[in-house]
Amino acid sequence: MPRTAAALIIGNEILSGKIVDTNTTLLARMLFDLGIELRRVVVCPDEIETIGKDLGELRTTHDFVFTSGGVGPTHDDVTIDGVAESFGRPVVRSVATEKMIRDYHGDRTTEAHLRMANMPEGAEMIRSSNAPWPTVVIENVFVLPGVPEIFERKLADLRKRLDEGYEFHSQAVYTLCDEGEIAGLLERIAEHFPGVMVGSYVKWQAEDYRTKLTFDGTDPKLVAEAADMLVAELDPKLFVRRD
Amino acid sequence: MPRTAAALIIGNEILSGKIVDTNTTLLARMLFDLGIELRRVVVCPDEIETIGKDLGELRTTHDFVFTSGGVGPTHDDVTIDGVAESFGRPVVRSVATEKMIRDYHGDRTTEAHLRMANMPEGAEMIRSSNAPWPTVVIENVFVLPGVPEIFERKLADLRKRLDEGYEFHSQAVYTLCDEGEIAGLLERIAEHFPGVMVGSYVKWQAEDYRTKLTFDGTDPKLVAEAADMLVAELDPKLFVRRD
Repeated sequence: MPRTAAALIIGNEILSGKIVDTNTTLLARMLFDLGIELRRVVVCPDEIETIGKDLGELRTTHDFVFTSGGVGPTHDDVTIDGVAESFGRPVVRSVATEKMIRDYHGDRTTEAHLRMANMPEGAEMIRSSNAPWPTVVIENVFVLPGVPEIFERKLADLRKRLDEGYEFHSQAVYTLCDEGEIAGLLERIAEHFPGVMVGSYVKWQAEDYRTKLTFDGTDPKLVAEAADMLVAELDPKLFVRRD
Repeated sequence: MPRTAAALIIGNEILSGKIVDTNTTLLARMLFDLGIELRRVVVCPDEIETIGKDLGELRTTHDFVFTSGGVGPTHDDVTIDGVAESFGRPVVRSVATEKMIRDYHGDRTTEAHLRMANMPEGAEMIRSSNAPWPTVVIENVFVLPGVPEIFERKLADLRKRLDEGYEFHSQAVYTLCDEGEIAGLLERIAEHFPGVMVGSYVKWQAEDYRTKLTFDGTDPKLVAEAADMLVAELDPKLFVRRD
C-alpha cells in the first residue's frame, strides 16, 4: 500500500484569484516522485475554525498532511491557531525561534514579527540551512508557508525525511488518435495491467500530437509493457513518439 | 450576503502533478468579478464514490458548485456518474446531444464518443455557440470539462446567467514595508473598515516593491478610504505606487 497524503492550501487570495497557487503542483510532483499518493487537496479561507475542521478530517484519513499559507506576521495569518485547534492544544511561543527572530530584526522587532515563533504546544521545529525560519511539524502535519520560494525550499528539506525508496515510473505515448476511438483499447490495457494507471490527455491547441497517453506505476516493467501494448495495437499512422 | 460558490476539480492527473490546474484561477477571477464568494476548492481523484460524496457536501453548503474534469470519453471519465450518484438519480443519455455527436463523427462514432451524451436524469443541457457540446447543469451544479480552452469558453457562456450586478472593487498599494512592521497598522485598518478585506503579500524575489497591500470590497468608497488610511499613515519613504 502506498503512503497517502493530502494538502490544505490556506488563503483568501487564492480563492479570490488574486494569487495563483503554484505550491500544489510542486508538492504533487515531489510526492509522486517519492511514491506517496496525493489523494486530496482542499483550498480554504483564512479562518481558524475552517482550518481546524478541515485539518481534523485530512490528518486522520491520510498518512501526511501539508499545509501552505497563513503563517506570516499579519492579522490574517491564522494557520497556527487553526492547526492548534485541530489538535486541541494551546498555541505557545518557541523560545528558540523567538531568539532567531530577535537576532534578525534587532531593535526593530515587533510583536507581529514574534507571531512567527508561535506553534501548537508540543510541535517539532525543524531547522533548515535553506530557509530563514524553522518548519512547524506536529505529528503527521507539516506547516509550510505560502510564499512559493520559501515553500519550495522547505519542501526540498523535507524530501529526505519522507523518502523511503519507493517511486513511481512513468511512460508517455503521443498519438494523433481521437480519444473516443481508442477509449476501448485504453480500457483493455487498464484491465490487463491493474497496477498501472492509464491516463489520456487531449491537446486542443496546435501541437505535433492530439492525444497523450500516460502509464504510471511502481513496477517499471509493467509500466513499459502497458505502453508496449498500446503501441503494438495502435494504427502506426497515428503514432507520433514515446518518452 | 454575497452568494457563495465551491469548486470540485476532478482528476488524478492534477494530484500526480502531471497537469497544472489553471481552471481554478479562471473560475476564481470570474466569481470575484461577479461578487460571488468562492469559499472552497476540493481536488479529488477520478472515483465515482469520492466525487459523489464531495459533491453532496459542497452543493448543500454553497449556492453554486462548479466541477472541472472527468467528462471525456475514456474509462477514467466518471464525473457524470459521480454527479448522478450525489443526486441519487440514474445516468441517462441526452437524445439531443447524442444526435450532435453522431452528426459530428458520422460513421466513426463509437460507444466511447456517445458517453459524452450521458447526463444525470433531469439535468439541463445548456447549448453554447462557443463550445462543441452542451454543458450539463443540475440544480446548482455546473459540470465543466477539464481541458482549459473548453473550460474557459463554457465559463464565459455561464457568466451572463450568474451576473446579478454585484461586484467587488479592489485597490492595491505597493510598499517597501516589512510585513511585521506594518501588521499593527493593517489590523487597525481592518477593524476600522469591517466591509473591506485587507490583504498583505510579500514578494521575495526582486521587484520594485517588497509588500503589496490589497483592499477589496463591494463598496468602492470604503475600499478607497481604507487604502487612503494606509497611505496617510505610512512612512512616505516606503510608498512605491498605488493602483
